[in-house]
Amino acid sequence: MNTTAKLLLYCPDKQGIITEVSNFITINRGNIVYLDQYVDHVDNILFMRIEWEMDNFQIPKEKVKDYFDTLCAKKYEMEFGIYFSDQKPRMAIFVSKLNHCLFDLLSRYTAGEWDVEIPLIISNHEDLRPVAERFGIPYYYYPITKENKAEQERQEMELLEREGINFIVLARYMQIISERMIERYPHNIINIHHSFLPAFIGAKPYHQAFVRGVKIIGATSHYVTQDLDAGPIIEQDVIRITHKDTPETLVYKGKDLEKIVLSRAVNKHIERKILTYKNKTVIFS
Amino acid sequence: MNTTAKLLLYCPDKQGIITEVSNFITINRGNIVYLDQYVDHVDNILFMRIEWEMDNFQIPKEKVKDYFDTLCAKKYEMEFGIYFSDQKPRMAIFVSKLNHCLFDLLSRYTAGEWDVEIPLIISNHEDLRPVAERFGIPYYYYPITKENKAEQERQEMELLEREGINFIVLARYMQIISERMIERYPHNIINIHHSFLPAFIGAKPYHQAFVRGVKIIGATSHYVTQDLDAGPIIEQDVIRITHKDTPETLVYKGKDLEKIVLSRAVNKHIERKILTYKNKTVIFS
Amino acid sequence: MNTTAKLLLYCPDKQGIITEVSNFITINRGNIVYLDQYVDHVDNILFMRIEWEMDNFQIPKEKVKDYFDTLCAKKYEMEFGIYFSDQKPRMAIFVSKLNHCLFDLLSRYTAGEWDVEIPLIISNHEDLRPVAERFGIPYYYYPITKENKAEQERQEMELLEREGINFIVLARYMQIISERMIERYPHNIINIHHSFLPAFIGAKPYHQAFVRGVKIIGATSHYVTQDLDAGPIIEQDVIRITHKDTPETLVYKGKDLEKIVLSRAVNKHIERKILTYKNKTVIFS
Amino acid sequence: MNTTAKLLLYCPDKQGIITEVSNFITINRGNIVYLDQYVDHVDNILFMRIEWEMDNFQIPKEKVKDYFDTLCAKKYEMEFGIYFSDQKPRMAIFVSKLNHCLFDLLSRYTAGEWDVEIPLIISNHEDLRPVAERFGIPYYYYPITKENKAEQERQEMELLEREGINFIVLARYMQIISERMIERYPHNIINIHHSFLPAFIGAKPYHQAFVRGVKIIGATSHYVTQDLDAGPIIEQDVIRITHKDTPETLVYKGKDLEKIVLSRAVNKHIERKILTYKNKTVIFS
Repeated sequence: MNTTAKLLLYCPDKQGIITEVSNFITINRGNIVYLDQYVDHVDNILFMRIEWEMDNFQIPKEKVKDYFDTLCAKKYEMEFGIYFSDQKPRMAIFVSKLNHCLFDLLSRYTAGEWDVEIPLIISNHEDLRPVAERFGIPYYYYPITKENKAEQERQEMELLEREGINFIVLARYMQIISERMIERYPHNIINIHHSFLPAFIGAKPYHQAFVRGVKIIGATSHYVTQDLDAGPIIEQDVIRITHKDTPETLVYKGKDLEKIVLSRAVNKHIERKILTYKNKTVIFS
Repeated sequence: MNTTAKLLLYCPDKQGIITEVSNFITINRGNIVYLDQYVDHVDNILFMRIEWEMDNFQIPKEKVKDYFDTLCAKKYEMEFGIYFSDQKPRMAIFVSKLNHCLFDLLSRYTAGEWDVEIPLIISNHEDLRPVAERFGIPYYYYPITKENKAEQERQEMELLEREGINFIVLARYMQIISERMIERYPHNIINIHHSFLPAFIGAKPYHQAFVRGVKIIGATSHYVTQDLDAGPIIEQDVIRITHKDTPETLVYKGKDLEKIVLSRAVNKHIERKILTYKNKTVIFS
Repeated sequence: MNTTAKLLLYCPDKQGIITEVSNFITINRGNIVYLDQYVDHVDNILFMRIEWEMDNFQIPKEKVKDYFDTLCAKKYEMEFGIYFSDQKPRMAIFVSKLNHCLFDLLSRYTAGEWDVEIPLIISNHEDLRPVAERFGIPYYYYPITKENKAEQERQEMELLEREGINFIVLARYMQIISERMIERYPHNIINIHHSFLPAFIGAKPYHQAFVRGVKIIGATSHYVTQDLDAGPIIEQDVIRITHKDTPETLVYKGKDLEKIVLSRAVNKHIERKILTYKNKTVIFS
Repeated sequence: MNTTAKLLLYCPDKQGIITEVSNFITINRGNIVYLDQYVDHVDNILFMRIEWEMDNFQIPKEKVKDYFDTLCAKKYEMEFGIYFSDQKPRMAIFVSKLNHCLFDLLSRYTAGEWDVEIPLIISNHEDLRPVAERFGIPYYYYPITKENKAEQERQEMELLEREGINFIVLARYMQIISERMIERYPHNIINIHHSFLPAFIGAKPYHQAFVRGVKIIGATSHYVTQDLDAGPIIEQDVIRITHKDTPETLVYKGKDLEKIVLSRAVNKHIERKILTYKNKTVIFS
């Protein structure tokens, strides 16, 4: 497999941008293997994802970002990111006591389904250490109390820094992430919320759903922002229920939704197929 | 087709109730053609629907309710309703300006899909009179202002009374129904809300969904209660959307959801397959 | 509303085609309001849909096709079609005895939901004449027997020709369309099949689904080709069922699927958002 | 947790059966915790599932079957099975090379989600031994060739017998199960087929789906019978796809469907909520 470069960008839409970006690549002998774009006609913003093989590309990998910035991005006021397929993103998993999402993430990782490294799991409980050990992933225990929360998070962030973590997956982690950590990993913390957001924000959504008597329940994966359960939504899915369901059966049925919805979001993130704009996501296919 | 009786009831669950109710029917030579029951084990409530042919039934139709009350219902503290298939429920439709739900309801009615009478349509606008005329249904225009609302509703209720209306369908009717009318038709006013409740209560839910960036939209039919968009949910359905959708395309896609979800709810109501308890519905199959 | 031109094309993918097509439009002062493209990397085919306002376009409407053919299409071996928004496509509906799809199509038409003309309905039965009359659409009755089929179809085709029909919608029309008519309207005859194709091809698919004991049923709209129920699929949808369903309830539930799936397909066709290639469809958003 | 008895039965429907079965339990001081029934009115068959606590039950566990047979089953020509919650069913998993279903099954097992024992995994390849070892489950390797197939299956059956296996889950096992083994485990071998059956029976269904151009793909879990992919369907689910999907992305998306659909079926089987009749399943809630 050749190394590819993946370029994600958005900017005010003007004619010729797609051509100019394509030319930047092909003139320098990059072979384009993916191109998709979308224009938000309300705000007049172009969103674009382009991927090309680096084999014969004339610009060395370490200079691509600089060259693209100078030759294209500044000219069109682009926000952009460039990623190379031979640099696997490094992902940390945060868990508490529920194991279904963790099992699903580690199964896919172990099966080689994703181009990612998972060097560590962080938890505020010891419960899931055996799962981590089963899959051979280091497990770090940071019990959290009101008093020690700031200090523990500081230590967690040092660990994440030391391990070169690029993004964090909250796999049913039952602690609110502090502002400081969110700012350090903007649009790089993925949460799974066990409801069809924005319905049933906050605690015990299945119980809320039971009381409200809804006929369908859902799960939502989103980037974490300062507003609880209000960050950009990446993926949602739902399942039909009936009056026969109890809070317990909702929890059971919801687990499958949660793990699949979270893993779909993580997959899109790893593949660099998500752009975030105005608290919403553009998801490339 | 034989006339059938449909009995819907709920009561504290005790052993033998199903047998006793069945016996009440079979001893009196009723032929049971439908029996379904559900027990809420949390609240220990039995919900039951039973239907039988009246042909050889020993108790005359007009006395069934009284006999059942005396022989079964009082003994077990039942809430119950009895309906006969040869007495079609009479349904009023309330509309404003949007026609997709109205077309769907009248098409099914005209096609003979439902055992119902629709003697009238009420609107606060003249816009949909041509649709009513196309299907030959009397159309009553009651323009509503802050000043005249109470008086207009009073007249509407007189009309509904005069026409022997049993239940009301709000087919995208853009007025809040007053307390008085809700009390007159308890669990007999069906609304369609163009969101996946309880998400996006109130005005412009598709616009709210667009701003929030959800990946799935929905529609919800529910009985109208005093609390806005908070009555017992009868039916919900959803459709997947993407970042490419605009508020306009959401409105377009949502229309199909709304009309199908509303018609499913109306169908269940006409067939007497809904029991309401604790602001939730039990829907028989 | 300005008149727009809609250009649909596919051709072997080469670099620069999108730019060249865009330039053809913008150099001649067309304002592009829609552009979407898709590349099939297996067969290396580019599919593209582009739409622009004709207001200041330098090339007169009647010459656009010729100019585009000369300047772009031949060069890249394109298959293409050009359509103008002020020329509404003319659609014929074929029905037999079932009315739910017909009601849905005519409701949308009457509500002005689609940019289409429906000058006529053709049927092999008289049953649905009252529906046609209700909506004020001429209804032509061509009873079909083995003996008269060829002759009747000949007359139908004359009528279609006379009325300038562009495409045909088979709204549960229970006759096989002859080769001659299919060849006259290639990829312009839309059928709705009441199963999740390719499951349950042919007659009585709900009954087949009941016997097979499936847990989900579906409906499929597709272009008609010589092979029965095997043409390019435009749209499908499904609904969950249970062991409690009978062939009758499947028919009832399926009706809603059929009419929505058919109308979605018709909508895409009217909006010129479908390209057909290798017995498959590319559906633009 | 008290031990419960689970009774599943079907028989020609007659009045009073439900009462008589209930009485059999309550007279003998069993506390009923679940009762659901369904009548197939076409064939006039009653299907019933009833569960009760054994704590004070007067009939000793080992005699329940015999007593019920004598007192109820013979009288009404019932087919029935009785299971006790303290006797966990023993399940064998058969795999070949694909690991996603295996990971999902073992994750749920390890998490204690199911009341089941999994004493062994059988495979015709060595590939998944590391997965089995990770979860600490014995892994038996039986390579299959045309020549040795009968003999290998004989040895597998001896192993299954020795280990007291009650049912088998084919988790993407790529060998046809022989008649002999099917007869030994009637309605106790669960397969996952990676299509929406009966569409795309046999090999490479995703590739078939791609070629046919369907807009939705599915997965089906079913009991294995002599007819390939034609046994009673337990569960199905689907996911929407587009023209952008390739056979590879279908395989990827399908994996999630397969594992969830298979695990739902296994769960229903373990909970004794499936009755099989006329090559169809009745699934209790």
